[in-house]
Amino acid sequence: MEEAFARLATMPFEDLGFAKLDHHRGIRCGFPEVVFGDGKTREQVLAIFERCAAGESNVLATRVAAGVAEAICTRFGEAVYHADARAVTLRRAPRPRTPGGVVIVSAGTSDRPVAEEARVTCDILDLSVQVFQDVGVAGLHRLTASLDAIRAADVVIAVAGMEGALPSVVGGMVACPVVAVPTSVGYGVGFRGLAALMAMLNSCASGVTVVNIDNGFGAACAAARILNRASSVEA
Amino acid sequence: MEEAFARLATMPFEDLGFAKLDHHRGIRCGFPEVVFGDGKTREQVLAIFERCAAGESNVLATRVAAGVAEAICTRFGEAVYHADARAVTLRRAPRPRTPGGVVIVSAGTSDRPVAEEARVTCDILDLSVQVFQDVGVAGLHRLTASLDAIRAADVVIAVAGMEGALPSVVGGMVACPVVAVPTSVGYGVGFRGLAALMAMLNSCASGVTVVNIDNGFGAACAAARILNRASSVEA
Amino acid sequence: MEEAFARLATMPFEDLGFAKLDHHRGIRCGFPEVVFGDGKTREQVLAIFERCAAGESNVLATRVAAGVAEAICTRFGEAVYHADARAVTLRRAPRPRTPGGVVIVSAGTSDRPVAEEARVTCDILDLSVQVFQDVGVAGLHRLTASLDAIRAADVVIAVAGMEGALPSVVGGMVACPVVAVPTSVGYGVGFRGLAALMAMLNSCASGVTVVNIDNGFGAACAAARILNRASSVEA
Amino acid sequence: MEEAFARLATMPFEDLGFAKLDHHRGIRCGFPEVVFGDGKTREQVLAIFERCAAGESNVLATRVAAGVAEAICTRFGEAVYHADARAVTLRRAPRPRTPGGVVIVSAGTSDRPVAEEARVTCDILDLSVQVFQDVGVAGLHRLTASLDAIRAADVVIAVAGMEGALPSVVGGMVACPVVAVPTSVGYGVGFRGLAALMAMLNSCASGVTVVNIDNGFGAACAAARILNRASSVEA
Amino acid sequence: MEEAFARLATMPFEDLGFAKLDHHRGIRCGFPEVVFGDGKTREQVLAIFERCAAGESNVLATRVAAGVAEAICTRFGEAVYHADARAVTLRRAPRPRTPGGVVIVSAGTSDRPVAEEARVTCDILDLSVQVFQDVGVAGLHRLTASLDAIRAADVVIAVAGMEGALPSVVGGMVACPVVAVPTSVGYGVGFRGLAALMAMLNSCASGVTVVNIDNGFGAACAAARILNRASSVEA
Amino acid sequence: MEEAFARLATMPFEDLGFAKLDHHRGIRCGFPEVVFGDGKTREQVLAIFERCAAGESNVLATRVAAGVAEAICTRFGEAVYHADARAVTLRRAPRPRTPGGVVIVSAGTSDRPVAEEARVTCDILDLSVQVFQDVGVAGLHRLTASLDAIRAADVVIAVAGMEGALPSVVGGMVACPVVAVPTSVGYGVGFRGLAALMAMLNSCASGVTVVNIDNGFGAACAAARILNRASSVEA
Amino acid sequence: MEEAFARLATMPFEDLGFAKLDHHRGIRCGFPEVVFGDGKTREQVLAIFERCAAGESNVLATRVAAGVAEAICTRFGEAVYHADARAVTLRRAPRPRTPGGVVIVSAGTSDRPVAEEARVTCDILDLSVQVFQDVGVAGLHRLTASLDAIRAADVVIAVAGMEGALPSVVGGMVACPVVAVPTSVGYGVGFRGLAALMAMLNSCASGVTVVNIDNGFGAACAAARILNRASSVEA
Amino acid sequence: MEEAFARLATMPFEDLGFAKLDHHRGIRCGFPEVVFGDGKTREQVLAIFERCAAGESNVLATRVAAGVAEAICTRFGEAVYHADARAVTLRRAPRPRTPGGVVIVSAGTSDRPVAEEARVTCDILDLSVQVFQDVGVAGLHRLTASLDAIRAADVVIAVAGMEGALPSVVGGMVACPVVAVPTSVGYGVGFRGLAALMAMLNSCASGVTVVNIDNGFGAACAAARILNRASSVEA
Repeated sequence: MEEAFARLATMPFEDLGFAKLDHHRGIRCGFPEVVFGDGKTREQVLAIFERCAAGESNVLATRVAAGVAEAICTRFGEAVYHADARAVTLRRAPRPRTPGGVVIVSAGTSDRPVAEEARVTCDILDLSVQVFQDVGVAGLHRLTASLDAIRAADVVIAVAGMEGALPSVVGGMVACPVVAVPTSVGYGVGFRGLAALMAMLNSCASGVTVVNIDNGFGAACAAARILNRASSVEA
Repeated sequence: MEEAFARLATMPFEDLGFAKLDHHRGIRCGFPEVVFGDGKTREQVLAIFERCAAGESNVLATRVAAGVAEAICTRFGEAVYHADARAVTLRRAPRPRTPGGVVIVSAGTSDRPVAEEARVTCDILDLSVQVFQDVGVAGLHRLTASLDAIRAADVVIAVAGMEGALPSVVGGMVACPVVAVPTSVGYGVGFRGLAALMAMLNSCASGVTVVNIDNGFGAACAAARILNRASSVEA
Repeated sequence: MEEAFARLATMPFEDLGFAKLDHHRGIRCGFPEVVFGDGKTREQVLAIFERCAAGESNVLATRVAAGVAEAICTRFGEAVYHADARAVTLRRAPRPRTPGGVVIVSAGTSDRPVAEEARVTCDILDLSVQVFQDVGVAGLHRLTASLDAIRAADVVIAVAGMEGALPSVVGGMVACPVVAVPTSVGYGVGFRGLAALMAMLNSCASGVTVVNIDNGFGAACAAARILNRASSVEA
Repeated sequence: MEEAFARLATMPFEDLGFAKLDHHRGIRCGFPEVVFGDGKTREQVLAIFERCAAGESNVLATRVAAGVAEAICTRFGEAVYHADARAVTLRRAPRPRTPGGVVIVSAGTSDRPVAEEARVTCDILDLSVQVFQDVGVAGLHRLTASLDAIRAADVVIAVAGMEGALPSVVGGMVACPVVAVPTSVGYGVGFRGLAALMAMLNSCASGVTVVNIDNGFGAACAAARILNRASSVEA
Repeated sequence: MEEAFARLATMPFEDLGFAKLDHHRGIRCGFPEVVFGDGKTREQVLAIFERCAAGESNVLATRVAAGVAEAICTRFGEAVYHADARAVTLRRAPRPRTPGGVVIVSAGTSDRPVAEEARVTCDILDLSVQVFQDVGVAGLHRLTASLDAIRAADVVIAVAGMEGALPSVVGGMVACPVVAVPTSVGYGVGFRGLAALMAMLNSCASGVTVVNIDNGFGAACAAARILNRASSVEA
Repeated sequence: MEEAFARLATMPFEDLGFAKLDHHRGIRCGFPEVVFGDGKTREQVLAIFERCAAGESNVLATRVAAGVAEAICTRFGEAVYHADARAVTLRRAPRPRTPGGVVIVSAGTSDRPVAEEARVTCDILDLSVQVFQDVGVAGLHRLTASLDAIRAADVVIAVAGMEGALPSVVGGMVACPVVAVPTSVGYGVGFRGLAALMAMLNSCASGVTVVNIDNGFGAACAAARILNRASSVEA
Repeated sequence: MEEAFARLATMPFEDLGFAKLDHHRGIRCGFPEVVFGDGKTREQVLAIFERCAAGESNVLATRVAAGVAEAICTRFGEAVYHADARAVTLRRAPRPRTPGGVVIVSAGTSDRPVAEEARVTCDILDLSVQVFQDVGVAGLHRLTASLDAIRAADVVIAVAGMEGALPSVVGGMVACPVVAVPTSVGYGVGFRGLAALMAMLNSCASGVTVVNIDNGFGAACAAARILNRASSVEA
Repeated sequence: MEEAFARLATMPFEDLGFAKLDHHRGIRCGFPEVVFGDGKTREQVLAIFERCAAGESNVLATRVAAGVAEAICTRFGEAVYHADARAVTLRRAPRPRTPGGVVIVSAGTSDRPVAEEARVTCDILDLSVQVFQDVGVAGLHRLTASLDAIRAADVVIAVAGMEGALPSVVGGMVACPVVAVPTSVGYGVGFRGLAALMAMLNSCASGVTVVNIDNGFGAACAAARILNRASSVEA
């Protein structure tokens, strides 16, 4: 084990002191380095973003405050700030879309920021993505109005707060993978998304999987893991 | 206040020492005295049941173990044991049904004991009641197959464990009162019904109300409160 | 099932992109479209309110900040801002009151915002409503002073924070439906309404039902479901 | 500090290896050594009980299984097993009652074991005690029927499960100390007494204090602390 | 029961619409009407305070913001603002102290606001009170330095956050009643006082009772209930 | 909407009274009807299993007690009982494996029942599957010993109790979809799998998704959704 | 990284299929392979124990039922079953004790099984260990009676259930490392050790560290990590 | 016991009224008096700091707001403000380092404040300390790159938020004591550090101990307890 650990120690990463950039992860796991803005100072976000942008891959910063986003965009003219999603993207070069399509459905208007974080992340990960908002289960015809498009998806990301019932209903309607994203929308015993999360983990629709509350980014990454791999599965 | 309290003290009830039977509650609230079996000894359940049966009203015992139920039925030939509902009823005299109908829908086969407790209670409370089982949201056509009957109800009792989504979907389909009953069906983060309860309290279908986990009895009482009163509301 | 879903897709709703207005729900469930302000931007609230107001039904916006409320009132001269309830109403035409009366009782002065949300919602839903505030159980004569009025109600909405005991006491005094609303009033192990909610769900008064913490709106909708239906139950 | 600790080390106690009997606590705090049976083996309970009984004070064992209780009673002819309270007492000599009276009120029949543990403990602590059972708040006249006796108490112990509202109502009716005991009676979101406990800690009746769930013993000890001291307060 | 309720309805209280002042509670339970400032608007606090001050009893307002306190003091020259305790008192006439003494011990400097709320409340309730601060269990000699004074108390109020161990240690040292007050001091798994509360409810010192987190007011009321009654217990 | 609901009502399912068999779900979602044994009586499990077995698809019963399993196997000679997995399978006809491979890794020996439930489910769903047990993160070389096989997977199911760290480490090593299954293995603050679940939902490895505690069945269904769809994604 | 992982794969361990024995961990971390009996079948425990015993190191099995323990002792004559600790040890050869001494203090008699698990584990890890039981904080002189011995320790393991105050008091008395072990002793809001755990994590005695509830084994391992290392720290 | 308590009362401490400075604790437990800034007013922090600085030992203030820190530094020219750690140190005299070395590893950039609090505390406690940041388990080669340094440590402090897996992986790599510090980094079901805390307490790496969430100070104190004692353990 000793030698193995020693070998691991020779692998390259870039050390900023407070952060270690793992440029190989892109190759290893299929993702670019991502800057998660929460809990980092403006200076840290900017410094990490700059180092990432020094390379050739796309860059994504999530959970960034408006002020920080503007600072990034000032520094990088081609960077784009997605206010609803609280994200900044820097797209370096046109790349082909990954085969397969993602559909994002969200239960209510208030779930929009999370759905948008998922959409922006899918996009920067080169996935094709379509969004249907405000299709919660208390008015099912709003959902079924988009049923053909939802059924055509290769991955569905279902975003919902409150009682979190949308993934169960969708999971019963489609055969493809369904990634459920609880949101912190609601109040009282919604406990900032906990009710929705618990509902989704107890879904009676078999095979629905779940990510953390408000984690639109993670759901998009899960979709990327699925579709990136799908192309290489031999039928 | 002193006099008021003193007056209250003159009201009649029957004192068994460990229990005080409030025979006036039937008149005051519309319910017979009910024996809640949980946490009472066999002797206590039997003694309370006997005193209740000495009167002329119907009697209901809930959450009674099979052995206790048999002892009651041995003592009272006309008592009926409802094994699924874990309840015993003693119907003293034919009474007219309360106007209006209750429909009970339940999400899965495992929710049956709770749905049955609700059904048996509705029946002993002189309500007309119909039950549709195993109509969970992951296969919506099972629910909609009974839609006409559900829509004809004056009160719907929606029973579900796991993610507890059924009341939200039903609440969007009907205009009448919907009483949601979470059940302890499920495992893991279902937390013995807590996930379903939280989902129901966060329902996006406005005006759905909720009772305690597995409280089929309470849901039926709520239905009785609604329908007993409904007849006297002048249109 | 395929055709059924396809048919659902032909049902009308109005699509604002971030919101889908379900004008048929008024007909289907007896409620107007309601704007829930929490978690929506000022622009979203205004846009949805405008579209709703383009129709002929009454409009209700809940959980709206003062600034947003003023913006609505500026745009619609006949809109009314209810500061205590944090709600805006737009009443389009005189309509007859639904038969039956609602009584709202609240335990303390601090529960007022929730009681007011319930009152304003009842009013816009065309229900007759009366309010008795500050009648908590530690001074029972304040409650019993209004006993005749409470007993005359067809639905009682009982609003309480802290230990949430009011619905249990009221539930033992009246035979009509009792909808309990826990409030986030209190501190420490009140856990922002959780103690009151748990108490209400465990009420020893049979047939009391419960809505989410601070959900005065939901309680009023439940009352509307009950009274709207009551008129059509044939005695 | 060193010397102080060294001095403490010279104080007497009896060392059984797995237990250290603090015979001075009776003098120091006013209580006899008590054997808490939960989590101790039959052998440990018997050994501790024997050592305690070797002295001259009264002995109390709580939470003892029937088999262990019988073993104690076989060994000590004058020991008494209180089955409802799951307690054994050994009264060594007639002692005068402490001035002042305790009243125990309990909400339901199922709360009886806890109320009995409190009663038996009061008795062995030489307190005068009276019990009123099944006086829950959903039928207030059962409570007010005993109002004079309750008002005459110097300490009230209020025992309740489910929504735990009894101490709030009692606390508003009497001026003396009220010790609230939540019980594990109930189900679902009662969470084995947690709902009642939280309600009691949030009581709107000022100055109500609370002990652990099912802790009838502790409530009686609190009453003893109060009444033992009361006699020496100079009016 | 009907008549009893009707009689209760004739009892006097003063109705401000949003509040019902129960001037008889002072007589009934031994307390003045108290204004709990949390969750009330400035206008409500002022209005209630004014009505209370129109009588002849002392007045206490707790949990009042500095601005509200100043407004009260401007209006009533003799009112006193206790900043640490976030309380305002209005003492109308010299009254004799209740026999018996209260000692308040607190574990750390950060617990001061709660200890002060208890002290100010004891004082306005005419109790003699002494305070020992910063005597937590990690340095026991700070506690034992005041042991004689603590032992002389007729009631001890023990205030502690973090692990809440102080009441257990004090409860083993004194024979008089011990009222434990958990505070929200701490962080992480202290959960704003929950750890201290749970510890206190599980105290191995028999007969310790507990009030809600940060409820210094409630602990003082409990002390008043004890001492007010003590004088009338005949030795 | 009315017509749409009516149409849904014409869809076929088989009604056993207490259960409605949805034979179309196999076609609609890619799964056979599955019998979930928890909370169902022996008679119900047998009856549902028989009806399912009357068709031509494979049948799977999960969470079945040994006695029930034997009863099934007695009735159906070709049924197989998987004791570790607490599952029974009935394979009706040889079918081709779905392209792509699943690897199941589990952290400890005690996680075996959950890993086996996943394996048996994958198998009956026609997926190719390989299992590596006892490869927890406190001895990383046990995990890396199987790294080539894990890297070759198209879906990884990572099963772990206790601190639930395995999916985070695996998620950093592979680019394919990772489905995390928390198990109830552990004690104390493991809270029967909650600690592992929470850890997995907070994984720092992007794109890991999670199912309910002990839900090996659900993880396998998620793998089936992924691989069934993968074949049809055009590269 | 690839090569590093590949190298890790060449490290030796013994593969039993359901378990992988890491014989190098003894060398790497200073511990023998330990069999954790919880959640493993009798056959698995026996098989793992046998393989471990085939080597030359000591073997420890924890959380083993009496029946399993007897089976081990039947197979290995020199194995010893410690019933209180629910552990089996197999000591292969006399080895010198590690320099330094461990003192275990426990609050009550019911904490004995956990204290014993810690003692037995210390012993098999070649640590010198001394135990003082039943020295809880409500009778401090029982603790201070052993103060010299406690002060002489190089590591103190403090075991307590209920309010978990013992480590705070001990932590203020000694300068050496204190490892706190909460136990599941208690009831009600003790929540099977959670109250004690939370108290210990919030200890006002700086530098106290904590292990999982009932984890006497883990505390002993922590002591071994400390003392094994201490010898090599150059003064 | 009486005398012992009386003796304790003669021990010296400095009484500021709201705080009692225990200058002997430095001698008794090896720590200087530390000012914990949370929950104290600016005036209290300053007053306590001044009294501490009047002595000759080093002084540490933690959790101090920037403004308070500046006030301290203005008053004491040699005081140093560590902004990342939110701490102020005052080093009075050069003292030799304690033998042995501490290594702090932290999982992500956002954990920096906690890691820094640990580092600053170690330093003022005269420990040698080295820090490796951003070495979380999803990119193991970043951790193993520093493996030699980590292995050379006599104590490792492992700081991590989110899923808290770092201490488990490190605990499997080193034989020395590992003190785990969960941080409040994360969101959703991270519950402000609770997920990480629970994971660490359930670590499969034996002998890892844990401190409160964000308690970098406590982890450093634990390291000091270990290393201060280590020097005196005779090998």
